[in-house]
Amino acid sequence: MKLPVTLKRVFGLARSNGGNPVKIDQISGWVKNVRPLKTITFVEIQDGTTLQDLNVVLKQGPPSFRPALGQSVTVLDPEIVQRKNQQFETICLPHNLRLVGATTEYPIQNKQTALPTLRKLPEFKHRTTYLSNLMRFRHKIESRLSKTLDELDFTLVKPPILTSIDCEGAGEMFKLKQDHWDKAVNLTVSSQLQLEVLMMGLGRVYCLQPCFRAEKSDTNRHLCEFWMMEVEASFIGKNETLMDLVELMIKNVVSSLCETEDLPKYFPVGCNNGVTERWAKLLQDWNRITYTKAVDLLLSSGVNFEHELTWGKDLNSEHERWLCDHFGGPVFVTNYPRDCKAFYMKLRQDNATVECFDLLFPDIGEIVGGSIREDNYDTLKAEIQRRNMDPNELEWYLNLRKEGTVPHGGFGIGIERLVSYLYGNPNIRDSIPFHRTTGQIDL
Amino acid sequence: MKLPVTLKRVFGLARSNGGNPVKIDQISGWVKNVRPLKTITFVEIQDGTTLQDLNVVLKQGPPSFRPALGQSVTVLDPEIVQRKNQQFETICLPHNLRLVGATTEYPIQNKQTALPTLRKLPEFKHRTTYLSNLMRFRHKIESRLSKTLDELDFTLVKPPILTSIDCEGAGEMFKLKQDHWDKAVNLTVSSQLQLEVLMMGLGRVYCLQPCFRAEKSDTNRHLCEFWMMEVEASFIGKNETLMDLVELMIKNVVSSLCETEDLPKYFPVGCNNGVTERWAKLLQDWNRITYTKAVDLLLSSGVNFEHELTWGKDLNSEHERWLCDHFGGPVFVTNYPRDCKAFYMKLRQDNATVECFDLLFPDIGEIVGGSIREDNYDTLKAEIQRRNMDPNELEWYLNLRKEGTVPHGGFGIGIERLVSYLYGNPNIRDSIPFHRTTGQIDL
Repeated sequence: MKLPVTLKRVFGLARSNGGNPVKIDQISGWVKNVRPLKTITFVEIQDGTTLQDLNVVLKQGPPSFRPALGQSVTVLDPEIVQRKNQQFETICLPHNLRLVGATTEYPIQNKQTALPTLRKLPEFKHRTTYLSNLMRFRHKIESRLSKTLDELDFTLVKPPILTSIDCEGAGEMFKLKQDHWDKAVNLTVSSQLQLEVLMMGLGRVYCLQPCFRAEKSDTNRHLCEFWMMEVEASFIGKNETLMDLVELMIKNVVSSLCETEDLPKYFPVGCNNGVTERWAKLLQDWNRITYTKAVDLLLSSGVNFEHELTWGKDLNSEHERWLCDHFGGPVFVTNYPRDCKAFYMKLRQDNATVECFDLLFPDIGEIVGGSIREDNYDTLKAEIQRRNMDPNELEWYLNLRKEGTVPHGGFGIGIERLVSYLYGNPNIRDSIPFHRTTGQIDL
Repeated sequence: MKLPVTLKRVFGLARSNGGNPVKIDQISGWVKNVRPLKTITFVEIQDGTTLQDLNVVLKQGPPSFRPALGQSVTVLDPEIVQRKNQQFETICLPHNLRLVGATTEYPIQNKQTALPTLRKLPEFKHRTTYLSNLMRFRHKIESRLSKTLDELDFTLVKPPILTSIDCEGAGEMFKLKQDHWDKAVNLTVSSQLQLEVLMMGLGRVYCLQPCFRAEKSDTNRHLCEFWMMEVEASFIGKNETLMDLVELMIKNVVSSLCETEDLPKYFPVGCNNGVTERWAKLLQDWNRITYTKAVDLLLSSGVNFEHELTWGKDLNSEHERWLCDHFGGPVFVTNYPRDCKAFYMKLRQDNATVECFDLLFPDIGEIVGGSIREDNYDTLKAEIQRRNMDPNELEWYLNLRKEGTVPHGGFGIGIERLVSYLYGNPNIRDSIPFHRTTGQIDL
């Protein structure tokens, strides 16, 4: 394999080399910083595989080109050491630094470029340390979420994006122009119904893929195209089991983050430099509270909320924010009134609430939503009729309850929201490479 | 965590328990087979997490219900052992086998249901051992492909499904009905162009997500919605490096398959029982041949092909098949004429061919396609103009070549084709849970 060696690999070798240099043929990357001194020039380069720079110390004058931000370069015969201040460094003679790709009008002139500006430079914004690191950070989070499920014998499956189901009720759907099929075809808003089919064959399933909502909300918490990790498991009858699983998955992520140095030194204005305290908080106990208790708390809080709250109404984001503040951390709110939630949720014995939960995080709101599903054919059919939905459209779904039905449930984790919260970046548009929101669809 | 124990876990414990029983509170699953004898009844159950059955040996008469295919059941207080014939078994008293979910008209009456019939039962087909195992098999393949890339410091990224780029040229695109944006929006046919953007920030990137082609081809090798693993890496100038990486990735998959017992005992008619020999073949050397040599070989073969071949024409599937037969295994065909391939491929010194490859597998044809990308601004712009494409549309893409451009390349692996080939199932419709093809869009 002739893939060139990465800085990440070389730094790993240098770290374990007891201060001795690691000699390689060459290393390539992009110039991230240039600091000319009187007799030497420092050229910091990165190759995208790690947060850390390689500090190229140019002695005996400058090279044949003028090093500048954004250029791609190759260093020949480097000897890379880790210095006592933890920095990685190589001394370089001028003729050993080679220009690969020049720049003309490199648009990212310094590290302090504001995020709104970067969002308008979709083809260049990932050259910043802050945003490229955010992508690596996301990869790590997704991998750790999957690992927990894999270890619990879940199978990763691939339900469709194109679907002819239009009754999930999770929001307005995008529709296809073409009539390749004899029915209307939409982009999925959630894979849950298909996951339930697969769960009946595979016992425990999950997926990680994009969902679509054709809503025009223009907030820092909504995207038209976003990724969800959706989970469905058989032989589970209680909310508590699902919440335990959610808590385990996210705490495993946080633990793995705490073990690494994955945060850039520089955070843009408005972003949270204190994420390590945020992580520590997430490793403590999480609160669980019923919807009914939550409403009691909110009503007795004395706060004059903008949206009036009475039992039976859905919580608004201001209410969710108050609850997180009140508990000082994540809160599971459980057992909402049946009419606040989707038709497929398991009716509880009180006939008024359903066996469900929303996980609320401070600042960002709902991160996960889940429920036990109604597995009784008659109860589910009655609910579909009560809501004036068409039972014929859902016959296939109802039929699952006729053939070897099992108690089961699941949930969906909003990936961009989770990543944003953990990275301390309040706008989820930066947690996906190219965001699709009202008015914006670049590349 | 109160998630119930899985059969996979229990079997693992029993396997390492030296023939001693593993005692647990209960185990649940679906009935896969019932064999009533004179005094005892065998009820085989599975919970979807493993290929193997638990054989429940009912002594002292039948339980309070009549065990039947497809029911969900719970066994209380089982003591599970692995017998000398490797089967897992528990002796069970009638009152310890509990019915969870009955059946009414369970549609999958025996293991020999033909695949075309199963495809018409999308909500039930994954209850078969053959198809549920195919989904687990796919998960394993995808995980192993990702692992190789992760170990080589690639970052998994999430390019968009919705895109305003419509000039990739890889096929007809699905379009959105809604006008949420001031330009036409399509479903992606390939993430390559966006991956190139991300590669410039992250060095090495890959994605694993659905692509869409609005073509009406109705073959066992085409889907309207299919998954690709697309890879893009910087500082690579030669085809050989990319082919080495492809070969490593797929050989790592095959090696991991060889170490496990992931094939059902039963294969439907038309499927390949001899896949283990197929795997062994894949671990040997793969052939690499230029397009020009391939054409010479085909022309001198004496075969009367249906589609006439001359240098400059693309290879047809009959030609690809002949090449694979001729070499008795996978073949990389490299350096196609420039007009056979997309505009972004690196022009070779001969000015006639491009630095690219197709990987052909026997029976199924192209599994992987890739190339080095043109990284020179002027050459790329000239090629775009030569093809009468609009350079304004591609200005952002051209600009990548102005700011720190690097030699780079990548490829896309067709997941369903790879999975089908490795599982010995000739129709890729079975390698995705719910296939979307001309005329068929269920669930």
